[in-house]
Amino acid sequence: MSSDVYVAGVGMSPFKKSTQSLQELMADAGKKAIESAQHLPIDSIYIGAMNVEEFVGEANFAALLADYMGLSGVPSSRVETACSTGATVFESAFYAVASGYMRNVLVIAGEKMSHLPKLTTARILAEVIDREERRYGATMSALAGMITHRYQKEFGLSDKRLKNVLARIVEKNSANGTLNPYARTKRTIARPAYEKARLIATPLRLFDCSPNADGAAAVVLSCERTPIRVSGVGHATDSMALRHRASLTSFSSTRASALKAYVMAQLNPRDIQFAEVHDAFSIFEIIGTEDLGFFEPGQGWRALEEGLTTLDGRLPINPSGGLLARGHPSGASGLAQIVEIVFTMLGEVDGRRKIKRADVGLAQSAGALANNNVVTILERSDRRRVVASGWQPEYKPVIQVGTSNGVPQPIGDSGVLETYTTLYATPEGFSPPHTLALVGIKGGDMVLARYPKYLEKDRFKIGQPVVLKKRGNSILFETGGFLQNMKNKVKNLLKRKPAKGSPSEIEV
Amino acid sequence: MSSDVYVAGVGMSPFKKSTQSLQELMADAGKKAIESAQHLPIDSIYIGAMNVEEFVGEANFAALLADYMGLSGVPSSRVETACSTGATVFESAFYAVASGYMRNVLVIAGEKMSHLPKLTTARILAEVIDREERRYGATMSALAGMITHRYQKEFGLSDKRLKNVLARIVEKNSANGTLNPYARTKRTIARPAYEKARLIATPLRLFDCSPNADGAAAVVLSCERTPIRVSGVGHATDSMALRHRASLTSFSSTRASALKAYVMAQLNPRDIQFAEVHDAFSIFEIIGTEDLGFFEPGQGWRALEEGLTTLDGRLPINPSGGLLARGHPSGASGLAQIVEIVFTMLGEVDGRRKIKRADVGLAQSAGALANNNVVTILERSDRRRVVASGWQPEYKPVIQVGTSNGVPQPIGDSGVLETYTTLYATPEGFSPPHTLALVGIKGGDMVLARYPKYLEKDRFKIGQPVVLKKRGNSILFETGGFLQNMKNKVKNLLKRKPAKGSPSEIEV
Repeated sequence: MSSDVYVAGVGMSPFKKSTQSLQELMADAGKKAIESAQHLPIDSIYIGAMNVEEFVGEANFAALLADYMGLSGVPSSRVETACSTGATVFESAFYAVASGYMRNVLVIAGEKMSHLPKLTTARILAEVIDREERRYGATMSALAGMITHRYQKEFGLSDKRLKNVLARIVEKNSANGTLNPYARTKRTIARPAYEKARLIATPLRLFDCSPNADGAAAVVLSCERTPIRVSGVGHATDSMALRHRASLTSFSSTRASALKAYVMAQLNPRDIQFAEVHDAFSIFEIIGTEDLGFFEPGQGWRALEEGLTTLDGRLPINPSGGLLARGHPSGASGLAQIVEIVFTMLGEVDGRRKIKRADVGLAQSAGALANNNVVTILERSDRRRVVASGWQPEYKPVIQVGTSNGVPQPIGDSGVLETYTTLYATPEGFSPPHTLALVGIKGGDMVLARYPKYLEKDRFKIGQPVVLKKRGNSILFETGGFLQNMKNKVKNLLKRKPAKGSPSEIEV
Repeated sequence: MSSDVYVAGVGMSPFKKSTQSLQELMADAGKKAIESAQHLPIDSIYIGAMNVEEFVGEANFAALLADYMGLSGVPSSRVETACSTGATVFESAFYAVASGYMRNVLVIAGEKMSHLPKLTTARILAEVIDREERRYGATMSALAGMITHRYQKEFGLSDKRLKNVLARIVEKNSANGTLNPYARTKRTIARPAYEKARLIATPLRLFDCSPNADGAAAVVLSCERTPIRVSGVGHATDSMALRHRASLTSFSSTRASALKAYVMAQLNPRDIQFAEVHDAFSIFEIIGTEDLGFFEPGQGWRALEEGLTTLDGRLPINPSGGLLARGHPSGASGLAQIVEIVFTMLGEVDGRRKIKRADVGLAQSAGALANNNVVTILERSDRRRVVASGWQPEYKPVIQVGTSNGVPQPIGDSGVLETYTTLYATPEGFSPPHTLALVGIKGGDMVLARYPKYLEKDRFKIGQPVVLKKRGNSILFETGGFLQNMKNKVKNLLKRKPAKGSPSEIEV
């Protein structure tokens, strides 16, 4: 019933600290896409930008960009879903063409952030995080650090092995990126450089985090047949807060969106020949390849170690270099992945970057901490395949969506350390080292807690019991044991009155 | 080929200064819509909000709202086109259902602004205006004031008649609003109150401007037949800057979007039985009814005077009270219009507000100063009509889109006053009275110019020659004549050296 939707043209700006304005970047990418679509008449424009209001001070950007491109008159809408904006704007445009009402739609996604002071950019980027977690000084890196520690624990990686895995992702993607003229990072980041780099949020170092950048990507979608068809689009959300998640090592939003995309495309994970996976942080690539059904849960790191995901591996992941190498202008990344899929499928890439089988590619994008994820599958239109009647997906993931169960739970005075991170790159108002943890409490809920500054730096162990205290409107955690005894002794010596409200009375 | 799209449920929050948060307002409206859709399972959520980043400090609102409503997991995208956001988010959701991929989609649009200091809200709202015009202190009211003066001149209305027309719009819509439990304005604003109100931007007074408000509206769209079908959707942009427009008394974005909607619906303007028209400023209702093809250009005010647009008139316009009575929470208004159309069609309104024929309703929404407009037509599903084969629209408007012709023109030293306004409610950094004008220069272009503070308040006349000067990076205009002579005399007396650069050398 729906129209088939094809990719008629693509374009991209180099991703870097740019001196161009956002409209220049986006118009350049858009014009390239229109040119490569041989100037098909554009019925509608869909633009993606995460935060034009705060990054560039504009609040009417869809009209502005249409006008700036000389396309005034053409309908223009902006779509936004935090860091997956580039993928959801593609999704909205896909439906417009699939509806049969629009023949050719121009999709442009971009972001400009590098002109602002670093702390300002960091503050703006942090607005995608649950307000309560933000209040504790949680950054995207902090949340990713906690996820990494949890993954390590759940799947039994030693510190050494974890570091090896992360360093290999960074090395693979940065090496791929050196073959990509649009990538921000222009050199291979080998193990020594990786290890020397400063800690951002334990265990993540600088190169585990995709760098900020300015950039834009564009696609023309059409109902007229071209060599590349959009065969699957899936989209799903998850709870805003990490502490409300059902799992810390798998993203239900990826699983649910992948399932939808596979069903629409009538394809299975094993049909996918290569993928661009949202590696905003190194660990996300591993989790992504598991959630997409490429590898079993907890096996993504092994696949990487075995070299399955390199350019000449069985399933190249991020042949473009991914977000780690390309840089991550929030709104642009989701569409840049799709453009890279097209480049790879058409063989329009550096000879050393070409892969053996490039007829079916998948892009996976994440909005903020996997709150709003999208999976897109592109396929060669001339690919011959037979779909059995009564086709059913082989991919049958467990999808447990988190919930912000509105009822505040009494937190009690003790809990279990579910995961933690120590931030060394802190947001405004916090100073390093700043340790945050997710603590499991009675009833299976988790609370976010911070480690008090007045205690010395401690070693943390996932699974250990911790003591919870409330100070002001924040929850603190203490690890007990030696330091706790020390503290009690000091307290007794000073004979201070006990703080108001014993921990057992504390409620959040 | 496309699926038909029906309205399965609607909901709305009262529009007012609210103590509720944006997510509460939007969730309330959304839940009402889901209830009235008898809890159809929601496949996707489309949310509209113009500026959540600056109004409420959130940058991941689509996921946040899904989570807050207990709909975590469901895909959620935000759509934004300044003040027409509520209509474009409906449009995007319409295509999702029309594509056949989504069965039931929840659309929620809202905005929260009244908690901020007035000047902050004003600054944020002004970000929808072309940056160059903003730099001159242009506000939405200023641009609307200039349009009103131009309309008066082009269609030969005396000052008295213009005031009468504007006061009648305000009286009609506020009276309608008293019958609308969702409207912010709860009383009829009759002529004396209208005249007593302070000037905002000449000739517009306080009640010519729709008030700020907080509010949310929601719709469930479905592919399953219900009593109301979405029969036409049209969308078009125009140049960002007013000075680049082809016309100052007609909005090409309304005309182009109306034409598209009429063609999709296979209806003509005379088939429309009532309409909600974007009366962000009183004059916009008049221009809207002309651009929609209800009345000839320059005849909208006569239709109003003749009472054609009242509740018992031939073509009731804004039976809900419009934005003037309901208030204008930017992102919400476009969807609130559609919800009101549904209420009216279903007869779910105060008995005194019921209209005779309510089988075909039209909503027209404007993004900022008619940069990004949308027209939506709803129709009773059981309405019997025969569409002739080879149907062609009778509505054949002249559509001249403005262009931001990138090449700066030499402005010369003289021009013609095309329109003007004097602001009494000025943005930060400007003090009243602050007079702005659009001045026609050689080649048919217009420039925005301001009247210098050092000249006394003058009377302005559209069509009069003016002198242009450049001071810093701004263009000033002077009206010559008596004041000019005075100024020259003073200059000569003081025997100051002439300013650098004669006017004829000035370029913009």
